[in-house]
Amino acid sequence: MTTAVIAGVGPGLGESVARRFAAEGCDVGLLARSGDYLDGLAADLPTDAAAVPTDLADPDDVAAAFETVRERLGPVDVLVNHASAASWTGLLDTDREAFDRAYEVGPRAGFLCAREAVPDMLDGDAEGSESGSGGTVIFTGATTAVRGREGAVGFSMAKFGSRGLAQSMARELGPEGVHVAHVVVDGGIRPPDREVDDPEEYLDPDAIADSYWHLVEQDPSAWTLELDLRPHVEEF
Amino acid sequence: MTTAVIAGVGPGLGESVARRFAAEGCDVGLLARSGDYLDGLAADLPTDAAAVPTDLADPDDVAAAFETVRERLGPVDVLVNHASAASWTGLLDTDREAFDRAYEVGPRAGFLCAREAVPDMLDGDAEGSESGSGGTVIFTGATTAVRGREGAVGFSMAKFGSRGLAQSMARELGPEGVHVAHVVVDGGIRPPDREVDDPEEYLDPDAIADSYWHLVEQDPSAWTLELDLRPHVEEF
Amino acid sequence: MTTAVIAGVGPGLGESVARRFAAEGCDVGLLARSGDYLDGLAADLPTDAAAVPTDLADPDDVAAAFETVRERLGPVDVLVNHASAASWTGLLDTDREAFDRAYEVGPRAGFLCAREAVPDMLDGDAEGSESGSGGTVIFTGATTAVRGREGAVGFSMAKFGSRGLAQSMARELGPEGVHVAHVVVDGGIRPPDREVDDPEEYLDPDAIADSYWHLVEQDPSAWTLELDLRPHVEEF
Amino acid sequence: MTTAVIAGVGPGLGESVARRFAAEGCDVGLLARSGDYLDGLAADLPTDAAAVPTDLADPDDVAAAFETVRERLGPVDVLVNHASAASWTGLLDTDREAFDRAYEVGPRAGFLCAREAVPDMLDGDAEGSESGSGGTVIFTGATTAVRGREGAVGFSMAKFGSRGLAQSMARELGPEGVHVAHVVVDGGIRPPDREVDDPEEYLDPDAIADSYWHLVEQDPSAWTLELDLRPHVEEF
Repeated sequence: MTTAVIAGVGPGLGESVARRFAAEGCDVGLLARSGDYLDGLAADLPTDAAAVPTDLADPDDVAAAFETVRERLGPVDVLVNHASAASWTGLLDTDREAFDRAYEVGPRAGFLCAREAVPDMLDGDAEGSESGSGGTVIFTGATTAVRGREGAVGFSMAKFGSRGLAQSMARELGPEGVHVAHVVVDGGIRPPDREVDDPEEYLDPDAIADSYWHLVEQDPSAWTLELDLRPHVEEF
Repeated sequence: MTTAVIAGVGPGLGESVARRFAAEGCDVGLLARSGDYLDGLAADLPTDAAAVPTDLADPDDVAAAFETVRERLGPVDVLVNHASAASWTGLLDTDREAFDRAYEVGPRAGFLCAREAVPDMLDGDAEGSESGSGGTVIFTGATTAVRGREGAVGFSMAKFGSRGLAQSMARELGPEGVHVAHVVVDGGIRPPDREVDDPEEYLDPDAIADSYWHLVEQDPSAWTLELDLRPHVEEF
Repeated sequence: MTTAVIAGVGPGLGESVARRFAAEGCDVGLLARSGDYLDGLAADLPTDAAAVPTDLADPDDVAAAFETVRERLGPVDVLVNHASAASWTGLLDTDREAFDRAYEVGPRAGFLCAREAVPDMLDGDAEGSESGSGGTVIFTGATTAVRGREGAVGFSMAKFGSRGLAQSMARELGPEGVHVAHVVVDGGIRPPDREVDDPEEYLDPDAIADSYWHLVEQDPSAWTLELDLRPHVEEF
Repeated sequence: MTTAVIAGVGPGLGESVARRFAAEGCDVGLLARSGDYLDGLAADLPTDAAAVPTDLADPDDVAAAFETVRERLGPVDVLVNHASAASWTGLLDTDREAFDRAYEVGPRAGFLCAREAVPDMLDGDAEGSESGSGGTVIFTGATTAVRGREGAVGFSMAKFGSRGLAQSMARELGPEGVHVAHVVVDGGIRPPDREVDDPEEYLDPDAIADSYWHLVEQDPSAWTLELDLRPHVEEF
């Protein structure tokens, strides 16, 4: 049984990924701040799910959350680093606290979660692997991860920073059998809670989740480091 | 029934793509210079296949080949631009003929094939599309498409040129429902005809074909323009 | 005395580069189709200048032009590949001739000119170099060289292709003392012949020429492969 | 009189930039932890120089340092963000403190210094500018800023993060007359304090400083966001 952790789950893409991975048979660890929401989602999944209220900016909280996941679902095989804090403000309108928070919720949370999950992946119980090691870490990136955005200094720093971390990890861990990938979500994701005028201008989160699952299933002889995703009508 | 054309098929990746697409139910048009090889492959596929000996550098040949495919298999839904001519020589060791040939077999063949196939895709018989239009064009790229290679002026020009063509087409045709994607194959592909010492240092062509098929199946709300593929042990 | 060839000179950036390089003391070879224009410009430069009417798409013409430059100004030290053919049309509105022409005036002219000029640079009379070898090749690129443009398949192929050629040459020739650089001109260049409403929305060609000259003067211990240039008000 | 601040100065590139900018007539603010070193360098410069011992990871220290510079040299026109903390360790060998420090000395110090310096630049006393506003911010990047490095998770995150910050700032501040640029130093810098076997395999810091000064002097009609620098013999 594969155990996947979605760090930073919420209505929208995080939830679609959780549902898709559960539909593929994964047990799922759900990490986010809102306990009520997580409980509802966990109850609705067809596999075992651990709803673990977590402040991903807090190192102790992250460590405790992975402890809980491990106890309830076993060692982690797949990690989706999905959290980000998006105060979109320019240089002079961003205070140090907001800039730090973009770092803490973005690249540092990704780092802390990877520090917890990757040893499980290297530890030797992966199915279908001769060495026993294996696993997948996916970072949810954005257009801003490859093109710094005007009026969003903290978000630009954080999304670039996470992409740099992902690339470094991919080079370090690929030979060990751990697949690290970075997805550039280039456009708005269809909101879960309201109608939009032009739905085709948005990414369908279930369609994004298809590509996430494809990354998990890729054979080690042909792994992707980065792919982009956008609506077919998007100008880019 | 989906009709796919593989332009530049041969033992290795082209054949793996042909087999995979046929396994998914596609009729397949096979274009390459070697008639005998094509006949053998066509006979071995589970769906209708048209083996069309073609010099992709010859505009008349390309036009005739698509005419043949259309007559035998119907309008084209998927095109894989897979051909390239790889004389890996430096500036002073490359003559004009070799440079021209890299262009003709690479970006120009891609252009000529797209000119033939895309009108079929826009024409309105695509399944599962409200407008009826739809289709997929995949360019097989290489590391050299994103990083010019020392000692390979013609190949570098050609692979960059094809990537530029792919990006331009993606922006033009995406809103029309035609998905154009460029795959960066970053590493050596496992040779079909001999043992290698370290098989895991090569990309398995069947694994590459999995990602090609994923591109064909992506929902229009979350299309990929570019993804890279490499063996997990590859330094990059 | 340094001899510089500007391949594809005309009012605008080519002329600004010619004037700036002449002001720095270079003899200048001027290659373009319009003989009258070239004569006028040559007469106006403070150093020796060779006005050589040339169709850069014609290999014989290119060879003859460099022969003329060599006879009149000596071996070539600096080459600026500045020509491009810009029919901005989409896939279905571009015929083979237009696509071929984009190739011939773009990357192939760059290749042919480099084949002529680089042996001079390697030949051993460069001032200030221990080995005697040395020289500079600059490619004028555009936004479209790094981002394929909708509705411009030929131009996208050609500008990408030239960038790939430049990168390959840079890696091959750098160790030999020849500096190959690619400049991404990201915006419209101020037109030489008419007033514009918002001059600051355009690149001043003299300002671009400053950066070209900086590339020529860079010390071999810190060479630039690529830089971008745009007006400070440009959205990008 | 132009006032330039070098944040993170030391023997090597920082010192070369300080000397070059002073030679061009700039007063120079020197920020780093080592007071003794700074005093010696300041005494050796031909213009006014303020040696300000500063821990760039400490927000209060940064604010105080700019206060001192402003009092002694006037408002800041040019900022060079040059500091980085380079613990090159992989995922499992990097603790949270080291990862945080890479952030604090890298992108956050760049952010804090820019928050101090940019208001001076926007304030309206720039020479040669109609609006009076104007200035330059240069980030010293590295290969790792564009390609995450195996075994260097913190450094990869930090250098990517600074590049994202630089791009965001460039887009925000360019229209206001402030030029933000990012330099990719792709190779080892010649060490100031010892002989090396192959000096031409290293970047000469004085040659790098030439390109930094070129960025300061660029006309606003043709600004560079990013350039790379490497020794001509470097494989890349």
